[in-house]
Amino acid sequence: MFLLNGERRHCVDVSDRGFQYGDGLFETIAVYQGKPLFLQQHLDRLRAGCQRLFIPYPEQDQLKAEVKQLCEGSDTAVLKIIVTRGSGGRGYRQPDSIVPTRLLSLHPFPEYPANFQTDGVVLRFCQQRLASNPVLAGIKHMNRLEQILARAEWQGDAIQEGLMLDYDGHVVEGTMSNLFFVKDGVLYVPLLTYCGIVGIVRQKVVSLAQYNQIGIVEKQFDKTRVLEADEVFVTNSVIGIWPVKQLDQQCFKVGRITRRMQQWYAEARTEELKL
Amino acid sequence: MFLLNGERRHCVDVSDRGFQYGDGLFETIAVYQGKPLFLQQHLDRLRAGCQRLFIPYPEQDQLKAEVKQLCEGSDTAVLKIIVTRGSGGRGYRQPDSIVPTRLLSLHPFPEYPANFQTDGVVLRFCQQRLASNPVLAGIKHMNRLEQILARAEWQGDAIQEGLMLDYDGHVVEGTMSNLFFVKDGVLYVPLLTYCGIVGIVRQKVVSLAQYNQIGIVEKQFDKTRVLEADEVFVTNSVIGIWPVKQLDQQCFKVGRITRRMQQWYAEARTEELKL
Repeated sequence: MFLLNGERRHCVDVSDRGFQYGDGLFETIAVYQGKPLFLQQHLDRLRAGCQRLFIPYPEQDQLKAEVKQLCEGSDTAVLKIIVTRGSGGRGYRQPDSIVPTRLLSLHPFPEYPANFQTDGVVLRFCQQRLASNPVLAGIKHMNRLEQILARAEWQGDAIQEGLMLDYDGHVVEGTMSNLFFVKDGVLYVPLLTYCGIVGIVRQKVVSLAQYNQIGIVEKQFDKTRVLEADEVFVTNSVIGIWPVKQLDQQCFKVGRITRRMQQWYAEARTEELKL
Repeated sequence: MFLLNGERRHCVDVSDRGFQYGDGLFETIAVYQGKPLFLQQHLDRLRAGCQRLFIPYPEQDQLKAEVKQLCEGSDTAVLKIIVTRGSGGRGYRQPDSIVPTRLLSLHPFPEYPANFQTDGVVLRFCQQRLASNPVLAGIKHMNRLEQILARAEWQGDAIQEGLMLDYDGHVVEGTMSNLFFVKDGVLYVPLLTYCGIVGIVRQKVVSLAQYNQIGIVEKQFDKTRVLEADEVFVTNSVIGIWPVKQLDQQCFKVGRITRRMQQWYAEARTEELKL
C-alpha cells in the first residue's frame, strides 16, 4: 500500500533527488489496531530533519490525513514516511523552488520471536564505523550506506543486531536501534551529537527514566564501559525494547531496570493507543 | 533519454534501495560527437565501487551496448550511469540475491561561459565538512548530502565552486570537482584516502604530470598551503580543467603549468575521441 504525493502509485521519477543522492528523510512507525504509535513525535523529528536539510516540511494536516487513509482498517503494521527534496536543480545544487516528494507506505509487521523481548537478543560489535558529522547527526536522513555495510558483516539468525562505534572508538548505537546500558543502578546512553539517530523510543526511555527517578547519564563511552555493564538493552520504534543477553563473548542477565523500563514503556504505549 | 534496466522508462519502484537509502553508485561522463569520453576508466571506477559496496557489477558488454544505444546520434551531452542494489532485503539487510538496477540517462551539456577555461573561476571555502570514512572514500556512491549541504551555502553566478575540508582542516576537493595547486613548479593534489572522490580527470592529470616530468606530491594539506599556491585549478569529467582565479579573498594568476596541463588534457581528449 503506497501513497506517493497523495496518489496510489509506487513508482518515482528517476530524477527525484531521493533516488539520485539520498536527498531526503524518513520515519519508521509502528501501527497497532490501525493507530500509528507516537505519530506526533515522529512528525516532529521529520520536521526537524527537514529544517536541518532545508527541505520544506510538507503540509502536516495533509500528511496526517494520508497517514489515516493508509492505516485505517489495518491492524498491526509498519508505516514508513519518506520526504525527499523532489526533482530539479542542477547536480548538487537544489532547485530554486523545492517541491518535496512524499511517500507513505504500509508494510507487514516483522515476526520477531516472542523471546527476544523476554530472554533478550545477541549482539556483536561491527567493524564498520560511523563517521562524525554534526550537521547530519540525530536526524533520520536517507544516506544509509554505513548502516548497510555494517549490516552486511553478518548473516543468519544467531545475531540480531550490530553495534557501531565512531572513529574515536565511542560506542554510538546499533545499525537499526539505539543503545542503553545500566551500571550500579544508573542508566547510561551514548551522546548522539556527532553521529547516530535520535530515536523516538530512545527519547521516551530517557523521559521514563527521569519520570521514575532513575539516574541517567548521556555521554561518550568506549566499548569497555558497555562490556562491563550490569544490563544492556536496545530500542527502536518497531522492536520497542529488547534486552541484550550477549554482546560478542560477554553475557548479560536481563536485569531489573531493563524489566521495569519494558513495563513503563508498555504502559506508555497502551496509554498512547487509547487516545 | 533514459534506459532503465534496458527499457525506455524513467520511473523506478520506490522499493529500490537507491531510493530508500542511496544504496548505489553513479558515473558522470562527457559525450562528444556521440562518443563517451574515457568510458572504460569510468566503468572501471564503477566496478571498483560495486566491489567496495558488494553490489554485483552489471554485465559490461550489455552496459556498453546500452551506452552506445543512448549516445549514438547525439552530439555533445552528459551521460549518467547509475547502478543500485535494486529492491529487496529487510531494512538495511541486503537481499540474499541482489538484482542491481541500472539506469543510463543522457542530459544536455551545461553551457559554461568560455572564459571559465581561459580566465579561470571563482571559488570559496565551504563551512560544511567532509566526514572521514575510508570505506566510502574514493568511490562515487549515491550518499551525497554533504555535497548538497555545501552547495546550498551560496547562490547566484559570482562563485562557480566551493572547496570542502575534512574535520581535521585538510582541504579535500570541491563539491563537484577535484583540486590541484602548483607551488614552485611542483604539482600538489590532496590525498583522498579518507574522503572525497577519485576523479577520472584527476587521475588523467596525475598521469600527464608524471609523463611530462612535472613533480607531483599527493598528501594532506591545510587551507594555508592552497592559499599560498602559485596556481590553482579544479577538474571533473564535464568541465575538464578550470583554472582558479580567486579563492575567497585570494587571487591567483592562470599559470604556466595550468596552461600546459590544459593543453596536454585537450590533446589526450582528442586522441581518445579519435579511437
